[in-house]
Amino acid sequence: MRAVDLIRKKRDSGEHSREEIDFLISGYTSGEIPDYQMAAWLMAAWLRGLNRSEIASLTEAMLYSGEVLNLADLPGKKVDKHSTGGVGDKTSLIIAPIVAAGGLTVPMISGRGLGHTGGTLDKLESIPGFNVNLSLEEFYSVLRECGMGLIGQTAEIAPADKKIYALRDVTSTVENVGLICASIMSKKLAEGIGALVLDVKTGSGAFMKREEDSVLLAELMVETGQRMGKKVVALITDMNQPLGRMAGHANEVVECIDVLSGGGPADLVQLSLELSAWMFFLGERTKSVDEGRVLAESMIASGHAMERFRHCIRVQGGDDLIVEKPQLLPRAHSHADVLSSASGFISATNCEQLGTALATLGGGREKKEDAIDHAVGLEFHKRIGDRIKKGEPLVTIHYNSDAKLAEAQSLITESYEIGEVAPSKSLPLIRRIIGA
Amino acid sequence: MRAVDLIRKKRDSGEHSREEIDFLISGYTSGEIPDYQMAAWLMAAWLRGLNRSEIASLTEAMLYSGEVLNLADLPGKKVDKHSTGGVGDKTSLIIAPIVAAGGLTVPMISGRGLGHTGGTLDKLESIPGFNVNLSLEEFYSVLRECGMGLIGQTAEIAPADKKIYALRDVTSTVENVGLICASIMSKKLAEGIGALVLDVKTGSGAFMKREEDSVLLAELMVETGQRMGKKVVALITDMNQPLGRMAGHANEVVECIDVLSGGGPADLVQLSLELSAWMFFLGERTKSVDEGRVLAESMIASGHAMERFRHCIRVQGGDDLIVEKPQLLPRAHSHADVLSSASGFISATNCEQLGTALATLGGGREKKEDAIDHAVGLEFHKRIGDRIKKGEPLVTIHYNSDAKLAEAQSLITESYEIGEVAPSKSLPLIRRIIGA
Repeated sequence: MRAVDLIRKKRDSGEHSREEIDFLISGYTSGEIPDYQMAAWLMAAWLRGLNRSEIASLTEAMLYSGEVLNLADLPGKKVDKHSTGGVGDKTSLIIAPIVAAGGLTVPMISGRGLGHTGGTLDKLESIPGFNVNLSLEEFYSVLRECGMGLIGQTAEIAPADKKIYALRDVTSTVENVGLICASIMSKKLAEGIGALVLDVKTGSGAFMKREEDSVLLAELMVETGQRMGKKVVALITDMNQPLGRMAGHANEVVECIDVLSGGGPADLVQLSLELSAWMFFLGERTKSVDEGRVLAESMIASGHAMERFRHCIRVQGGDDLIVEKPQLLPRAHSHADVLSSASGFISATNCEQLGTALATLGGGREKKEDAIDHAVGLEFHKRIGDRIKKGEPLVTIHYNSDAKLAEAQSLITESYEIGEVAPSKSLPLIRRIIGA
Repeated sequence: MRAVDLIRKKRDSGEHSREEIDFLISGYTSGEIPDYQMAAWLMAAWLRGLNRSEIASLTEAMLYSGEVLNLADLPGKKVDKHSTGGVGDKTSLIIAPIVAAGGLTVPMISGRGLGHTGGTLDKLESIPGFNVNLSLEEFYSVLRECGMGLIGQTAEIAPADKKIYALRDVTSTVENVGLICASIMSKKLAEGIGALVLDVKTGSGAFMKREEDSVLLAELMVETGQRMGKKVVALITDMNQPLGRMAGHANEVVECIDVLSGGGPADLVQLSLELSAWMFFLGERTKSVDEGRVLAESMIASGHAMERFRHCIRVQGGDDLIVEKPQLLPRAHSHADVLSSASGFISATNCEQLGTALATLGGGREKKEDAIDHAVGLEFHKRIGDRIKKGEPLVTIHYNSDAKLAEAQSLITESYEIGEVAPSKSLPLIRRIIGA
């Protein structure tokens, strides 16, 4: 078998066998197939497409390019959640403690923020001392001790994905559902889980703006996971506006503490409970999703979820006093309000642009190497459908440097559409459930 | 400007500006743009296509990636011919002496054989001592002295093409008319010529099997050359059977000597005269193509073309005694006839497979690094439409090693279709003329 022939085959719309995909992925991981051949193949795959059988083969080949965690000795079913990312999307920090407190094991390998989206690892790193860079052995110990753990992708986990993702980033071959599916699923299935709940975002703040694209990606991921014997469902959820009231790093952690304390904004609470409920159900901890929701609520009400969160922070080297004293988290020096220029109703937001405004302030990255300011953030006062008066604050900006403030303010102002009447159509938070 | 954005643009069917193409080609030539980005762009361009304006920009960018010969001080117009290649296609060795003898300068930079096709450089190297690896200064001296010269692509000539061609070869992005056009035209126009005659082959032994593909490539090359102020015409010529009676290296040189001596097979003579006639006409040596044909014939009849050929051989370090004593050329030890298994008429040949049979015997290359046996060859006794009897020889194989003889014999046998009646349709050697 030769890489040049496989490139030609995909270029000419051929379908790859499992052996051909294995040859490509193992050859590329080992370095026998050079970057330029993989780049040509990726572009051919991007333009010609991969069918479901090829996506399954690709996922599996990438998964087995590295280690797959064996958590059989740990108690309870192993479940996880993955979100395709958005603005203010912080449910992982709420869900993992709820589900671990409820008796399942949650081995969560997460990512960093890029572009307009935030990343779980960056949020955790706003907690003084918190270490996301654990070895797989250390991760295993954390999971044994507190039933949950939150780390970044290690060199052992799906190295093919790591290498291919870096290449896709510089060859404009990122946005393809087949390649995205294989990238996500290979990493998640390397966690050694039996069940996975996917939160596939749709709307102006999501990677997939159109609901049909989100549904296609969700279906592919569900089918791929199920082909590999895993229980997988996907919730298609709204990302036409930020989730919760907070975006940023330290201030998102504060909002998670609010939710784990029984408070917090309604949308964030609802989505966190729903995702937890599905994890309980797929993890066979409850007989139904409804029962799962009740269990999740009780984990918050009893304080067990909060206790589990604090335990995890301690075990991963962080200072769990932040839960009682949020002022221990990094705080921005200044704040400024963005005021509404008109009276009326919020009819829409350009949610991606709100994320970009945050990144502009230093709370996001353009490139992977960029540093992040964990203290800056945005506080959203109004949601779509809310009434607002001229001069009332839309958003409060928490910032450290005046340099980019004006740019952020104008990005935010432009992001809100204000109409004279309330929008006729409401946007349900949970749009569809795929794979149930 | 960033390469990743240009890749995305072509991926999404965008049209590149001249500045964008220049950025890509100069960045790749200098090494600032890595192989993997160029590979992704090439695949996107292969699949999405390049329009005529992009092809012209690409050709020009590749041309000016290196040196362009300045032959202004040499006498006469500078003209050249380029063929897209086939089996037994040896006209360069005949045409260059005819046209140089007729008073024009022919600075011919040629290629090597690959796959089933032969290459001019390899044929020349069957002449003892002949050196095709001249520097541009040496080439200039040869041209000054004998009005013609035959060399390979140097490092100074279109280095972008050299680098891109090597990458296309390993990323399955060779067969695209836009990329082929830019590759050919950038090299040819670097010769500093004012006029170019293209011989675009069509049929079973050509890279383009279908006449419409050959016409498209011809039109692109003619238009690209004309946009750059050159006189260009393309002859679409038949390659459904080998040109002449000989394929191989030393034995093609012998056949060229036959033609220059006033003999040789009719098809080879006809095509050589026709191409020479167009060169005389485009080079403003004659007022019409017909006059050009008369001049070409007189250059053979007078012996001036032969004298020019011998002069060039001497100046490039070769032994011109081979013209009188062809036995000084490498000769194969053995020969074997492939006999017809049926009586009837030759109705078709798989001409590419005949080229492959020659390569199998050592007279061609699989990869660029492969060595060539200049002595082996095929002698074709029958042309399409000829009557043959069972047991009569179709082809005589000149070979040096028994190892691959049986394979070559069976490839040759399979290449001939023999029907009971003469084929109704004749295949004219010169199908169309583009750009006249």
